[in-house]
Amino acid sequence: MTNSNNKLSHNFSVRVYFEDTDAGGVVYHTSFLRFAERARTELLRSLGISHQSLEDKEGIIIAVRSCNAEYLKPARLDDMLEITSGNIIPEATGLKLSQTIRRGEEILVSVGVRLVCVNKKGRPVRLPLRIHENVGIFQN
Amino acid sequence: MTNSNNKLSHNFSVRVYFEDTDAGGVVYHTSFLRFAERARTELLRSLGISHQSLEDKEGIIIAVRSCNAEYLKPARLDDMLEITSGNIIPEATGLKLSQTIRRGEEILVSVGVRLVCVNKKGRPVRLPLRIHENVGIFQN
Amino acid sequence: MTNSNNKLSHNFSVRVYFEDTDAGGVVYHTSFLRFAERARTELLRSLGISHQSLEDKEGIIIAVRSCNAEYLKPARLDDMLEITSGNIIPEATGLKLSQTIRRGEEILVSVGVRLVCVNKKGRPVRLPLRIHENVGIFQN
Amino acid sequence: MTNSNNKLSHNFSVRVYFEDTDAGGVVYHTSFLRFAERARTELLRSLGISHQSLEDKEGIIIAVRSCNAEYLKPARLDDMLEITSGNIIPEATGLKLSQTIRRGEEILVSVGVRLVCVNKKGRPVRLPLRIHENVGIFQN
Repeated sequence: MTNSNNKLSHNFSVRVYFEDTDAGGVVYHTSFLRFAERARTELLRSLGISHQSLEDKEGIIIAVRSCNAEYLKPARLDDMLEITSGNIIPEATGLKLSQTIRRGEEILVSVGVRLVCVNKKGRPVRLPLRIHENVGIFQN
Repeated sequence: MTNSNNKLSHNFSVRVYFEDTDAGGVVYHTSFLRFAERARTELLRSLGISHQSLEDKEGIIIAVRSCNAEYLKPARLDDMLEITSGNIIPEATGLKLSQTIRRGEEILVSVGVRLVCVNKKGRPVRLPLRIHENVGIFQN
Repeated sequence: MTNSNNKLSHNFSVRVYFEDTDAGGVVYHTSFLRFAERARTELLRSLGISHQSLEDKEGIIIAVRSCNAEYLKPARLDDMLEITSGNIIPEATGLKLSQTIRRGEEILVSVGVRLVCVNKKGRPVRLPLRIHENVGIFQN
Repeated sequence: MTNSNNKLSHNFSVRVYFEDTDAGGVVYHTSFLRFAERARTELLRSLGISHQSLEDKEGIIIAVRSCNAEYLKPARLDDMLEITSGNIIPEATGLKLSQTIRRGEEILVSVGVRLVCVNKKGRPVRLPLRIHENVGIFQN
């Protein structure tokens, strides 16, 4: 985690492998969104929450409700990328957050995501209280 | 292709396989974006343009510059989905378009994409004239 | 379906998209195995069986027990490939089969797969009788 | 790296994310092969060799020539897996190795792979000498 300008952020590193690239010689556009989801999963894990136990114990799945991505610069095989997640805003049945994917100082991709909690029938359910209370540390 | 309300659209069908789903029991969010790209590739092919020949003969790669997706309803294993692409607007170095992913009459996902043409060094280059002139048929 | 040398085979076509390729400029090795699974799913569908209804109605999931693949020649973006599945041998709790992936007359990849039927706890269960009886048409 | 029974092995850990799972509720069969490739890439990196520099400086791509996998037990979302690579045998134009994917003490998947070095036209080329000499430390 980093704390700059009074904003607390969650950081997660990802290495680029062949599976993430395409015949254009660069990282395939949806691979960045997979990386962003790994980072969100680890952000939750840092709060003591795992997707599998959420589903097994509470019947809750956290799904993507909307997503927008700006692709500013390409990444290549073997690059080490860092995903920074912050600006988390809890909502009644989910949360919003911002993520940037960097290689060193360069911002390659910027992502905004809205997540929604659903039950096994796909109906929205309330964001669990312990998530609502704890994601606040990544809120500015 | 369909023509409704004086808008000409390109349609492409995709079957959902195990590879497209996740442990939530539904289609993984980035799989829809892979489907959307297959549809864009087929739209170009319907105009006589293939990614491989664009790269081999003209050194041009069509990359995603930005993408936003609204996930309205989930899809499941074995579903047959239809991707409709339209509202194509050519730009100096790329184009914008809208895509919807349907199962029957239901809209599951709506996607907006901006594409950019780049050379092998990743620099923006002009949208080839024959694309610029021909995508107009999918423009309203 | 094709019938050569008294062997009946199931055929399925797949187009190569960016998502299937890697930075080596060719189709990523596991993409061929995804294609092979699409072909097996369509082979079952040709017998009136879908994965989703097998799971929903009978609690049966068909899993890969083992897989071997020989990669003979590469495939590239935009290639149209054909997957031929045959030599199906039903077993007590699953089945074996052979698959070849071709581009025109060239064999690119040859795959052997053993599938096993499991229940939701991952325990092996008997191959459903209607599969056992019907896959025989793809057996030589 | 671990050294048991006079065999030196390379170890690499992988976390299971949503992207790796399928609607069967477990890790999709080809995801294990992606994990195995990440481990091979890191094994090479531990010898000072990266895919990108091999391609950029020497025009060499390391491709999978054949692969066989035994799927013994399933893995689930959030599992932490360990891939052990060993029994590396260098060959004229490539190498062979064995890999096991474990969760704790349980072996989930066992993989055998033959790799081949190819140039940009896909022709086999000699295994670079510094790989030939150095992979010997993972040979028993």
